[in-house]
Amino acid sequence: MRWAVILAGGSGTRFWPLSTPRVPKQLLPLCGAESTAEAAVSRLTGLVDRSRILLVTGRHLAGPLAARLGIETDNVLVEPVAKSTAPALAWATHVATRRDPKAAVLSLHADWYVPDVAAFQRVAAAALEVAEREPCLVTVGVVPTRPETGYGYLVPGEPTGSAFRVARFKEKPTPTAAEELIAGGALWNSGLFAWRGSVLRTQLERHTPEISRGLGELDHGNVAGFFDGAQEISIDVGLLERSPDVLTVRGDFAWDDVGTWEALARVRPPDSSGNVLVGPVSAVSTTDSIGWSEGTPLVLAGMNGIVAVAANGRLLVMPRSKAAELKQVLDALPRPVREV
Amino acid sequence: MRWAVILAGGSGTRFWPLSTPRVPKQLLPLCGAESTAEAAVSRLTGLVDRSRILLVTGRHLAGPLAARLGIETDNVLVEPVAKSTAPALAWATHVATRRDPKAAVLSLHADWYVPDVAAFQRVAAAALEVAEREPCLVTVGVVPTRPETGYGYLVPGEPTGSAFRVARFKEKPTPTAAEELIAGGALWNSGLFAWRGSVLRTQLERHTPEISRGLGELDHGNVAGFFDGAQEISIDVGLLERSPDVLTVRGDFAWDDVGTWEALARVRPPDSSGNVLVGPVSAVSTTDSIGWSEGTPLVLAGMNGIVAVAANGRLLVMPRSKAAELKQVLDALPRPVREV
Repeated sequence: MRWAVILAGGSGTRFWPLSTPRVPKQLLPLCGAESTAEAAVSRLTGLVDRSRILLVTGRHLAGPLAARLGIETDNVLVEPVAKSTAPALAWATHVATRRDPKAAVLSLHADWYVPDVAAFQRVAAAALEVAEREPCLVTVGVVPTRPETGYGYLVPGEPTGSAFRVARFKEKPTPTAAEELIAGGALWNSGLFAWRGSVLRTQLERHTPEISRGLGELDHGNVAGFFDGAQEISIDVGLLERSPDVLTVRGDFAWDDVGTWEALARVRPPDSSGNVLVGPVSAVSTTDSIGWSEGTPLVLAGMNGIVAVAANGRLLVMPRSKAAELKQVLDALPRPVREV
Repeated sequence: MRWAVILAGGSGTRFWPLSTPRVPKQLLPLCGAESTAEAAVSRLTGLVDRSRILLVTGRHLAGPLAARLGIETDNVLVEPVAKSTAPALAWATHVATRRDPKAAVLSLHADWYVPDVAAFQRVAAAALEVAEREPCLVTVGVVPTRPETGYGYLVPGEPTGSAFRVARFKEKPTPTAAEELIAGGALWNSGLFAWRGSVLRTQLERHTPEISRGLGELDHGNVAGFFDGAQEISIDVGLLERSPDVLTVRGDFAWDDVGTWEALARVRPPDSSGNVLVGPVSAVSTTDSIGWSEGTPLVLAGMNGIVAVAANGRLLVMPRSKAAELKQVLDALPRPVREV
């Protein structure tokens, strides 16, 4: 059967001060009325039965997420500690496989913006079909729409059936490298993956000693022991970049990981001045700016290209072009200011 | 005897959203711990007895101002309607002269920044001395420190004793004109004036029909009637620019009318990044900016040359260079946002 694993951790820093550890971005209505996590679940309707959707998250988010998304408690997997995507996906895939030895697992994130659900489902189904057929790990390579430097890229190699082998991965390129990659046909490594449980296990044992040493703990039901022994490592670095058995399916649909305030201008239509204004925000002679207020009237006058946010009793003003540096900004703030 | 008239009206728009109609800028601690209105009264200590300081203001401000400044009720003159400086000064000078027929009146504003009180008093005393001696209106021309385009200028002509005749006035010049004026020895028309009551009366009757027609009403104690009939006109336009009997005394002291948020950087020492931050404001990689928060933590990151203000449940973000256009910004705002 087909299963889905939704990764829904998150520290809540990328959309500070709107996002917080208790309400990280996947719970925020960033892209519309629905939160991205709710959209992630809706997006699977008809593709994966809700009873076979697993949610991986942290302790503080498990309750709110399960309630909001209508995921039953058994399917909410609470990480004892966040150690990036490789341990999380190994565990969740193990859970699916124990319940259903023939499980084919689709892995996705709770904080994406994917407006065209039909196109998404077509591609996700294709990835699952390849995973069900081939003893390989399947990635979905999204067709790039801009030379984004915050994403990872994958370069398709020789075709095999409806998919391609992956020739190489390139994480967060420079702007020039990103343009060259795109010109050469590279795709965004979206994080939308598919594999059979048995295949992931074999691949981890072959390529990822940082994780595979502890898989026996999972067999004995000792999740804490598994996480204790696992190293913090992403599935990309820990497995996909190491294995020769990685395929990619081309994903020609709009996809955004809504990683920074800057992304808001891609997922919400700007007004005729290029502004995206949410809440009581007044823009006077202001262009290409992002304004978000939860309640306090915010006035932007004569500004260009800024992000201004009033939320959770904090105000942030920064250039839109520097939105990706928000984490460093937070690190520079006194704790009582940062913690909302 | 020497009298002082402090003009303390104001609509509270220049420092929005911190300033409001009920708490306009002269009541704000813009330049330090003391409000500019309190500083205006302190600045007269030793020069004019407090019992001879008259305060001209509007109805809503009279109570708070009198209490804060320790001015007795008899000396608080409440304008029935604000009609600029000519009617206000005509009335206040009339009040002083009725109580003291030999009154020499010093006229000043409640919202100035003048750090060097001794220098101010030296110049103000000199202006009063000239006014006591000559049948003229005396202005203090402050030595300019920058080609300010928001001020009026006066060009000194031939010397007469310790003063100069005023050759001409120039209100709010272009930047180029301001530089030429300064190069030619022009001074800022500060609004610090001195005259005898009898001289002002004669001058108004000679040059300012817009006001003088109603002076008889004041003689009969009909203040409302006087304001009713008076036209809205400044003392500069209505009298000083028309009269040949205007002298100027050179004022070589730091003076600022703290007219915009921009002015804050002149009256409060900027930090090593050129920022002036008041209240819980954090600046990260931010330069030459002005941040003011009454309570909500405000974070400025990667910004240059902005004004950001959190006060009275409103947030304002604008370029520092456009601070003088705040009134137009307010005019463009919906009433519920503007009114704090």
